[in-house]
Amino acid sequence: MSFNSCGRIFSVATFGESHGPAVGCVVDGCPALVPLAEEDIQPALDRRRPGGGPHVTARNEPDRVRILSGVVDGKTTGHPICLLIENTDQRSKDYAALERLYRPGHADATYWAKYGIHDIRGGGRSSARETAARVAAGAVAKKALAQFAETADIRVRAGLISLGTACAGAAAWDDGAVDANPFFCPDAGAVEAMRREMEAAVADGDSLGGVVEARVDGLPAGLGEPLHDKLDARVAQMCMGLNAAKGVEIGDGFAAARARGSANNDPMRRPGSGRFEDAFASNHAGGVLGGISTGQRLVVRVALKPTPSIATPQKTVTRDLENADIAVSGRHDPAVAVRAVPVVEAMLWLILADFHLLHRARKNPR
Amino acid sequence: MSFNSCGRIFSVATFGESHGPAVGCVVDGCPALVPLAEEDIQPALDRRRPGGGPHVTARNEPDRVRILSGVVDGKTTGHPICLLIENTDQRSKDYAALERLYRPGHADATYWAKYGIHDIRGGGRSSARETAARVAAGAVAKKALAQFAETADIRVRAGLISLGTACAGAAAWDDGAVDANPFFCPDAGAVEAMRREMEAAVADGDSLGGVVEARVDGLPAGLGEPLHDKLDARVAQMCMGLNAAKGVEIGDGFAAARARGSANNDPMRRPGSGRFEDAFASNHAGGVLGGISTGQRLVVRVALKPTPSIATPQKTVTRDLENADIAVSGRHDPAVAVRAVPVVEAMLWLILADFHLLHRARKNPR
Amino acid sequence: MSFNSCGRIFSVATFGESHGPAVGCVVDGCPALVPLAEEDIQPALDRRRPGGGPHVTARNEPDRVRILSGVVDGKTTGHPICLLIENTDQRSKDYAALERLYRPGHADATYWAKYGIHDIRGGGRSSARETAARVAAGAVAKKALAQFAETADIRVRAGLISLGTACAGAAAWDDGAVDANPFFCPDAGAVEAMRREMEAAVADGDSLGGVVEARVDGLPAGLGEPLHDKLDARVAQMCMGLNAAKGVEIGDGFAAARARGSANNDPMRRPGSGRFEDAFASNHAGGVLGGISTGQRLVVRVALKPTPSIATPQKTVTRDLENADIAVSGRHDPAVAVRAVPVVEAMLWLILADFHLLHRARKNPR
Amino acid sequence: MSFNSCGRIFSVATFGESHGPAVGCVVDGCPALVPLAEEDIQPALDRRRPGGGPHVTARNEPDRVRILSGVVDGKTTGHPICLLIENTDQRSKDYAALERLYRPGHADATYWAKYGIHDIRGGGRSSARETAARVAAGAVAKKALAQFAETADIRVRAGLISLGTACAGAAAWDDGAVDANPFFCPDAGAVEAMRREMEAAVADGDSLGGVVEARVDGLPAGLGEPLHDKLDARVAQMCMGLNAAKGVEIGDGFAAARARGSANNDPMRRPGSGRFEDAFASNHAGGVLGGISTGQRLVVRVALKPTPSIATPQKTVTRDLENADIAVSGRHDPAVAVRAVPVVEAMLWLILADFHLLHRARKNPR
Repeated sequence: MSFNSCGRIFSVATFGESHGPAVGCVVDGCPALVPLAEEDIQPALDRRRPGGGPHVTARNEPDRVRILSGVVDGKTTGHPICLLIENTDQRSKDYAALERLYRPGHADATYWAKYGIHDIRGGGRSSARETAARVAAGAVAKKALAQFAETADIRVRAGLISLGTACAGAAAWDDGAVDANPFFCPDAGAVEAMRREMEAAVADGDSLGGVVEARVDGLPAGLGEPLHDKLDARVAQMCMGLNAAKGVEIGDGFAAARARGSANNDPMRRPGSGRFEDAFASNHAGGVLGGISTGQRLVVRVALKPTPSIATPQKTVTRDLENADIAVSGRHDPAVAVRAVPVVEAMLWLILADFHLLHRARKNPR
Repeated sequence: MSFNSCGRIFSVATFGESHGPAVGCVVDGCPALVPLAEEDIQPALDRRRPGGGPHVTARNEPDRVRILSGVVDGKTTGHPICLLIENTDQRSKDYAALERLYRPGHADATYWAKYGIHDIRGGGRSSARETAARVAAGAVAKKALAQFAETADIRVRAGLISLGTACAGAAAWDDGAVDANPFFCPDAGAVEAMRREMEAAVADGDSLGGVVEARVDGLPAGLGEPLHDKLDARVAQMCMGLNAAKGVEIGDGFAAARARGSANNDPMRRPGSGRFEDAFASNHAGGVLGGISTGQRLVVRVALKPTPSIATPQKTVTRDLENADIAVSGRHDPAVAVRAVPVVEAMLWLILADFHLLHRARKNPR
Repeated sequence: MSFNSCGRIFSVATFGESHGPAVGCVVDGCPALVPLAEEDIQPALDRRRPGGGPHVTARNEPDRVRILSGVVDGKTTGHPICLLIENTDQRSKDYAALERLYRPGHADATYWAKYGIHDIRGGGRSSARETAARVAAGAVAKKALAQFAETADIRVRAGLISLGTACAGAAAWDDGAVDANPFFCPDAGAVEAMRREMEAAVADGDSLGGVVEARVDGLPAGLGEPLHDKLDARVAQMCMGLNAAKGVEIGDGFAAARARGSANNDPMRRPGSGRFEDAFASNHAGGVLGGISTGQRLVVRVALKPTPSIATPQKTVTRDLENADIAVSGRHDPAVAVRAVPVVEAMLWLILADFHLLHRARKNPR
Repeated sequence: MSFNSCGRIFSVATFGESHGPAVGCVVDGCPALVPLAEEDIQPALDRRRPGGGPHVTARNEPDRVRILSGVVDGKTTGHPICLLIENTDQRSKDYAALERLYRPGHADATYWAKYGIHDIRGGGRSSARETAARVAAGAVAKKALAQFAETADIRVRAGLISLGTACAGAAAWDDGAVDANPFFCPDAGAVEAMRREMEAAVADGDSLGGVVEARVDGLPAGLGEPLHDKLDARVAQMCMGLNAAKGVEIGDGFAAARARGSANNDPMRRPGSGRFEDAFASNHAGGVLGGISTGQRLVVRVALKPTPSIATPQKTVTRDLENADIAVSGRHDPAVAVRAVPVVEAMLWLILADFHLLHRARKNPR
């Protein structure tokens, strides 16, 4: 029950700071006999890693993952899997000037208030670099789910559906588009607008927020536990726990609050397939009823605020509460929402692996 | 680590079904020596209880709470506090006709899929009646926080800021208004529009969604733990875990995703008071940075879907997946969002009590 | 993760004091569709209940259990099962004289030191009466295990193998004898010696300790998780957590520390049955290797100290640390070890139910 | 809530196998501002490390610890502390011959039964080498406790009080003796007998068990939580979770079961010091009443079975359950009990750190 871990059975504890020797995680609770090698994890890390393009931080981390434990002969043993990613491209001197200033929108002020100490270099523990460890763990979860017949067909895909005021079309989701543009945008038609918005922000020494949508298909019905471990509650927790997240929606989300029941309820009709999951005639619910997966598509949206580090001068105070101006140099993503796309996917893999194992524990006594 | 419990130190496990003998909870981890009597809890239950007005279910439950353990001589002993609320006004025959039908928008379908058994009467465990137990526990949390100097001044207030399409004015929040209208609306000027919207929906055999906003003042800085137990992550989890919740926002929420960093960052200025919490010049963050309270107002919004039970006939299927029509009679709130107001408050008291105790555990070693 | 709960999946949280309105528990995590009625639980309570014979407390509690939730149509629903046992025969005036004295050997001194408040009546929360709730929960665990093919044949039997200096013969265990004498002694030949020892202690205004042994047969191999949740580690935790417990052994226990490896290792031979579990030629290990069940008999011994409440005057201090004499009247078991027998059985049922569900969660991915 | 972690606030998750690249742990929940460097941890590792003398395994591991996270400027930050110890002296070829055999007394059989896969080299995860990580974590716990006034004076000392049939005198405990002999024996007068017993066992190709006693002084009263997290229950869990442990006692332990209440109860007398902790006239309880520390010396004994790896041929079976003979070569401690001494100390530091933080969370609301 450590503070930095998630999951009841498939659990992950992360560690590491932006400018320390390494970030990593311990995956505990993975079933045995899951085929696993570093090459299974590396592609997910490559997808989120910095240095990948014009619209992300210039910090260049190879993000090579090493498996330190829990795997023998190419298979998991059922014991803790330690994944280690060494940091190589720290430039801590970028931060020397900031040591006594609270960067607006950052965790500096609250970390100092809470802990009385803060590793200012790269934001220390509050850096989005921590999410590399989560992405690595997510790749293990994905492999684990592939081993079970009920979950082998799960597909998780996320995309950036808005960047600042540039929005993808709601009906224009194309899985193939996501990795074909530097924004992970599922709508090729919106990419140009995103690019313009990004370039304008960068030119102004400013940053952008965005919304990530994730879609999960192939889910079995029945995942999710009561109350605080409802499927949607856990999704909300883990997505709101991401750096810069300010909102989470399931299905119609906030729009459902403006609807009437007759429009928002999803009617059911006899499915030609005879499969329960095919009985729903619509999916306003986003794949969850009563906190449990219906077997329809799970739909999640996460709002991410603009990167707080901006070159434009801002008003702030020192740790002694004296007035100061600050312009945050260093190497930052102009929009953390972009690289949040693979991270949201990882959150979903982690959640689903855990809920699948929890569900297996109790189902079908006879 | 039971499924139906929340909290790491101040923990609450609820039990009970809509039409069983009782609902209740066990509060474990409350500090000793907190003054506590049934009269401290009853007002919170009275505020959310059914039978209270024209716009909530006609089910009339007195919702009298009994303290079965953990209190002696009017003070908590540090041991588990069992709170019991007996059900008295069940009308289970209302449900006989529904036994083989999935009610659209309800948990019936997923509960059957997951458990292979479902207490259909009143929705069984999936009923919002379970929240009575949470509200009772929230009242204990509030009393506990009042015992500590750092948290004695915390004020939690929630209100209904939209009902269907009727919205309170953003700047029109008046604490005094909330309990002066049957919608818990903080804007007296919006009450009439809400009433009209509600009456129209009822006349149409339909239901409404709504948005609850909660504001917490008097918070100390420093509450919230890393990653998945960030203050905002836990708020998201527990609010999304409420019946009918579909979205959660902190501070500017989804609007922050459309903003630029220069507008969204909250600047800081030397506070006249010399208090850290007063240094922020705005509060787009909603009182949380890096998952930790800043000491500013905590602002949370929860989107609740329309009550799924509606009198209007709907298309559905039987448990054998045969087509059927359904019109849900019984006694239902036309908008569960209304009675969610005191429940959201309770969630916040529970979260804050737990995080305060967690924070105390580690702070100020010297 | 409440303080008073155990189990990761099959979890139990107890509540209640000796002289409060009730004791009880919430069983959360029980699979759905387990047949369960109050009559399944009552016999276990009857076996441990006070008022049952000459060698236990004269307090006469009917210990009637009520199921308040989690069961419909005679089957569990997968939701929390609240079990309530009302207290009826409190005689709190017995305790008035003791209010300012620390009873030697009791938790009074430490409860006051820790909590600053203590429900002195019957020991409040520290009373062995709390174990009634655990025994009720154990009966549910037993029913749950009976639903799974792999665990349906598990048999848990405990007995009192020593009372003071009167010992059962190691080779004389007879299951049938256990319930045929008031000491739950598995060796009929030792009963007379136990009776004499007990009567002498009572005549002297004194009390006795004892050792409970438990044997579990029909266990599948593979139960138990790594490190701190090894099967034997959890057994040690939950048995040491019983009132008056001072020691726990598995298999040869402390005797193994005096043995050589060649004598203590259990050799293996090709089993005629072809069953792995039959391959062991001896069982010094007591059914556990590496924290995981071998499928052989699980053997556990728990040492219980003498009942601290004795009529003989003792030296003690008041809460102001002034000298005083004390003679503890009230109605007490002369040897808590006797009634610990069904409680140790309950602990094992709870542990095995939880470990079985945990093991199911991850096993056989393909 | 990972399987391989312990602690509710000060928590430790370990990872790593005997012959993998590394063993290590993540310490989460340590307070911030605790001075910590690798040199604070290394001495504890040096004390338990192999290669240290004639009576332990010849495997020579430098056991150099690296701090990978959670420390900046020589102080903890309140974030996860990853400690890494690389394995350097693996000789895996020793194990090739054993791959298809179950070594008697080892976890091979149960690991194969549970997981269907097993890292046979050095016992993989079941190796006592895992305890290096726990010892490193224990050193952090010790440093953390030193930061708090109430716990700064805690002293934890363990010693080997019996090796096979050679026993230390009960009254002969000398702290200074422990590190002055290769057995960690607190009685210099017993060392020669231990040496003879050890040499005879080695000459016979055999191994020995032993008993470790630990004594904790300077404890504040009030540590320990209810039921399953009683101080003694947690001690029992974590000590029984050690490799080769078969029994745990607190205070008089099993001897208390043969005593009468009048002899076993610890009387209290007005303390000259005015300190509650000095009021006890004896300490049969071993420092715990009702699961909570009294402030007296905490006394724990752990029984460890003989090392299962012995050179003497033994009867066993193959993984196909065919008969075979086995003689376990490789480099093994003739008595794992010896090196368990620093590990038991580490367990106590971990437990006390966690309970101290838990107790702080709730105490003294006013």
